[in-house]
Amino acid sequence: MDIKKIDEYALKLLKKAGDNIRKALENEMKIEEKADKDDLVTNIDKETEEFFVESIKKEFPEHKILGEEGIGEKITNLKGIVWILDPIDGTMNFIVQKRNFAISLGIFEDGVGKLGYVYDVMREQIYSAVKGNGALLNGNPIAPVNNSEKLEDTLIIAGYVETIKYYPKIIQLIEKSHGMRFLGSAALEMMEIGSGRAGAFIHKGLNPWDIAGSVVILEELGVKISRINGDEVNILEKGSLIAATANIHDNLINEL
Amino acid sequence: MDIKKIDEYALKLLKKAGDNIRKALENEMKIEEKADKDDLVTNIDKETEEFFVESIKKEFPEHKILGEEGIGEKITNLKGIVWILDPIDGTMNFIVQKRNFAISLGIFEDGVGKLGYVYDVMREQIYSAVKGNGALLNGNPIAPVNNSEKLEDTLIIAGYVETIKYYPKIIQLIEKSHGMRFLGSAALEMMEIGSGRAGAFIHKGLNPWDIAGSVVILEELGVKISRINGDEVNILEKGSLIAATANIHDNLINEL
Repeated sequence: MDIKKIDEYALKLLKKAGDNIRKALENEMKIEEKADKDDLVTNIDKETEEFFVESIKKEFPEHKILGEEGIGEKITNLKGIVWILDPIDGTMNFIVQKRNFAISLGIFEDGVGKLGYVYDVMREQIYSAVKGNGALLNGNPIAPVNNSEKLEDTLIIAGYVETIKYYPKIIQLIEKSHGMRFLGSAALEMMEIGSGRAGAFIHKGLNPWDIAGSVVILEELGVKISRINGDEVNILEKGSLIAATANIHDNLINEL
Repeated sequence: MDIKKIDEYALKLLKKAGDNIRKALENEMKIEEKADKDDLVTNIDKETEEFFVESIKKEFPEHKILGEEGIGEKITNLKGIVWILDPIDGTMNFIVQKRNFAISLGIFEDGVGKLGYVYDVMREQIYSAVKGNGALLNGNPIAPVNNSEKLEDTLIIAGYVETIKYYPKIIQLIEKSHGMRFLGSAALEMMEIGSGRAGAFIHKGLNPWDIAGSVVILEELGVKISRINGDEVNILEKGSLIAATANIHDNLINEL
């Protein structure tokens, strides 16, 4: 795996896709419902995924692609090199707010996350990581998180009503902390943990493309990640997630 | 009241204060607890309020000033011209995130809001309004909100745990909507409503300085504002708040 070549190509595609999305926002978008009224997709989600799939297939025909909009292929295992893409993470924000959304991309080799990207398109901030080399924000190193931080001194990101209803104890944990925040894009929320702007991210159910980019980046920053029951995350399975600095992670796993 | 002169001076002070705050963020800040562990203040909150109070007193010695940090005067009524200032709205974000905070300023004459400002310091975006002249973002007109918008098609900002505990029905209303968001700065959250990025803002208890700038701006954009029980807002009293587009506002008042 030529990590450097893939990294450069991925960054090139991300920047081009970001430019396209910002330009597309000037025109009216076409919106469709997927599973339910809160699960929407636009023509721009689809066009962005198409752009990635076509570009990746051209440069790396042997790589596999798993994308939220299903334009890549059906993936049943992580053998070989797999790009896992969410063309627009936070589609609801994209539609209603026209900001607070991200392109999320993780590149795995035989099941191991090697490259991760989260692109906050409207802020023009690209978080990236190559496994073993630390994480970057627009090319500048990000400091690892403070793993001795206490719940009392931080913010918790946990705003999906379903998550709070399923784990009502979260309310007490938020009260112990400095409070709750909630943006509506899992990828950007996980970057809040990596950047030290919050101490814990809790979510009841996320798909592979929601987390594939972020987990590679957060691992480089020393953030602890698991399912809410403490189990290791299998990237191909939908499931719950806690991403938190180590001390807070242990605290939350014990309480929930 | 020379509205134009006051508007120009207020904008000048806001820009200078924003520059000072961004510069101050490069150094370590001094943090103190006020009422409780979640009610913090920094040297920068105080220095910013001092800067406003001194500057206003110099240019408009007859004006009164009510500031969050109490450096202005004790205000028992809104007679004359009163500047109501929160030097940093969202102090917790300011400390933990170093973004997502605002300077909030409302200028009232005999109880009537005449000028309003909310400055998203890190995004360098100043929302402003002169009563009767519409609202601006960095000097460019903002379109009025869509008052026929439905709850089903929008986002609700209501993330303080105390608010949700006190009004548990909010959970059902969020489920009817496209979801919840929560930033942690009332002034910026109210600008989300004015900018159409969310349809309703609900809060259990806010102080005069939290809302004085926003209410003037939102009124110009056609946003409906009241206490949660539907009562009119008396700016000098601490209390609950709903700011929402008209149709959603009526809907929420009926349900809560």
